[in-house]
Amino acid sequence: MSKEPLYLDYNATAPMRPEALEAFRHAVEQTGNASSVHTFGRAARKLVEDARRQIARCIAADPTQVIFVSCGTEANATALGSVINEQEAEKLLVSSVEHPSVLQAFPEKMQTFPVDSNGHVSPTTVRQYLEDAPKGTRVSVMLANNETGTLQPIPEIADEVHAKGGLLHCDAVQALGKIPLSFNELEADMISLSAHKLGGPQGVGALVLRKGLHLEACLRGGGQEGRRRAGTENVAGIAAFAAAVEAATEELSRFQSLESAHREMEETLKGTAPETIVFGADSPRLPNTTCIAMPGVSAELQLMALDLEGIAVSSGSACSSGKVEPSHVLTAMGVDETLAANALRVSSGWASKPSDLERFSQAWLAVYQRQQRAA
Amino acid sequence: MSKEPLYLDYNATAPMRPEALEAFRHAVEQTGNASSVHTFGRAARKLVEDARRQIARCIAADPTQVIFVSCGTEANATALGSVINEQEAEKLLVSSVEHPSVLQAFPEKMQTFPVDSNGHVSPTTVRQYLEDAPKGTRVSVMLANNETGTLQPIPEIADEVHAKGGLLHCDAVQALGKIPLSFNELEADMISLSAHKLGGPQGVGALVLRKGLHLEACLRGGGQEGRRRAGTENVAGIAAFAAAVEAATEELSRFQSLESAHREMEETLKGTAPETIVFGADSPRLPNTTCIAMPGVSAELQLMALDLEGIAVSSGSACSSGKVEPSHVLTAMGVDETLAANALRVSSGWASKPSDLERFSQAWLAVYQRQQRAA
Repeated sequence: MSKEPLYLDYNATAPMRPEALEAFRHAVEQTGNASSVHTFGRAARKLVEDARRQIARCIAADPTQVIFVSCGTEANATALGSVINEQEAEKLLVSSVEHPSVLQAFPEKMQTFPVDSNGHVSPTTVRQYLEDAPKGTRVSVMLANNETGTLQPIPEIADEVHAKGGLLHCDAVQALGKIPLSFNELEADMISLSAHKLGGPQGVGALVLRKGLHLEACLRGGGQEGRRRAGTENVAGIAAFAAAVEAATEELSRFQSLESAHREMEETLKGTAPETIVFGADSPRLPNTTCIAMPGVSAELQLMALDLEGIAVSSGSACSSGKVEPSHVLTAMGVDETLAANALRVSSGWASKPSDLERFSQAWLAVYQRQQRAA
Repeated sequence: MSKEPLYLDYNATAPMRPEALEAFRHAVEQTGNASSVHTFGRAARKLVEDARRQIARCIAADPTQVIFVSCGTEANATALGSVINEQEAEKLLVSSVEHPSVLQAFPEKMQTFPVDSNGHVSPTTVRQYLEDAPKGTRVSVMLANNETGTLQPIPEIADEVHAKGGLLHCDAVQALGKIPLSFNELEADMISLSAHKLGGPQGVGALVLRKGLHLEACLRGGGQEGRRRAGTENVAGIAAFAAAVEAATEELSRFQSLESAHREMEETLKGTAPETIVFGADSPRLPNTTCIAMPGVSAELQLMALDLEGIAVSSGSACSSGKVEPSHVLTAMGVDETLAANALRVSSGWASKPSDLERFSQAWLAVYQRQQRAA
């Protein structure tokens, strides 16, 4: 088997798109602080505002709604922690499968509500939990789960939240660039985006706000981003982010063949190894994500065996510190810890080919068969 | 006169060094989330940890003391706002010439103390203000002022702060890469650094902590940076930051000739235009910074005239939103608002030549003489 590197961990981070790298290099040539009034500064400002328009256009929002920040984690923390329309969030209500950057942002104010066995959030559950919640409660539900790819019914959840006078935040970091994304159609009040999950640079993200929301900056001390986020703008990073979003939006159809390849791969594995479990399989999912367990074989062992074959996938989210722990997403879905500890995430992206999933299948089955023989 | 662009606004942002761009490109080729356990992730992790060591070595600190963040503003906000050694800052005591990201970070807890007419902080003043302050007060004094270049006696201030059981934070953003910087010799408890002021990318900074300080993350939800800053690390940005710091440290001697050129330029202007005022002239200053007023001529007019000649300088800090306002630094130094509104900042850097300052002199004097004739 070829040891050529095969990267199938796009939900952790994606390789940088050439369009993004080119935009980065071009921006770097225009030295300037986007707040400076001279020619260099105005050139930098233009790059930032062009990028804002580009991204807004790709997600059906208005440029004034887009606030650039340093990453998805900052976008999430800002959405949940900042004063909005002069109101601090008294209470945060979030699904139990949210990203750790939501779940751990403000634990003292946070209540979680459950999901079903597919990791799916029911709007009825949200309504029930909102019944006893104070007015102005902020609710946070991700559009697509980073581990299973499960998609949530955000517009329906938004209806429930708005009926109770709450604000809905949606972490759309994993969805952007993989499925069509329209800010208006989501009906959320705020969404979080990140550049590096779709081929932009690490260290850039955005928070997009519904019109009429006035957000007070968490980072203060400069008028940048309409006084909503101080700090010298990362001009080249922002330009590269926009280039990546634009390229991803143009190439969304690429995910159709990847989706077929993922589903075929899942069938192949279940065909040969009938005890295989695909998590979230009965829910709408991202086209690029498969979360799969080889019962009785630790994710760590699978990861190492695949890594030796040059194949990079992950177990759970990569956001801890190099530690492999059972996923909180799977345990929230009712998966027992032992099985959760056997789960791998395979996620493809802009540079993946359908044949990459075939190569993964073969390598995974080789691990499986070796384990069968050893057992 | 040549209209070739001449950038003399390094204190706002510096052009990216080729070493930094090269490090960025190299890092981008190693796709990976530094928290992933596979080969790609480990390669990314190595880049981050190599960068941490490189920067630590350049500032005489230990790598474990360096926390990467998204910018100087975030470093300052984290130093002042986070829980440190289980203690929240009850009170913040900062000089009146600090950067807005310090002055406006937590206004409700903030008290400012005055500086002298050179913008210099006296350790005695700090001692007096600490007399009535609660234990654990955090004090923040910048190493070098962004507008005037004035250098502060940080070790002496640290003695006063520590004698009262306080913590000293030092915003060293403008000093790094322009003068020798040793974390240990500064004796501060925390210092803030930023990449883009010395030729690294925008969107990357660091907070460096004295050993023994335990800082709780402001951004939570991931184990990155020793649980002190969640969010996928900006691997390429961090690698580029380190390359820039290393190059700047190796080339510090370049600032000797720039310093001479700045001082000569100041003499030339004062020789021809005797009412010229150089702010902070009687204080130790950065080698690359001149803050100078042409009495009776608005900074805005000077900026525009120079911009037409292709020369980029600034008035006050560039951190507001394209607005030219009298500098809070100069007014804190006792300069009246009318004169402060006539002040320009000229700041050179790694790609500047001494002749650049001569070209600035000529252009500035041309503006001056035109104004004299018009008066």
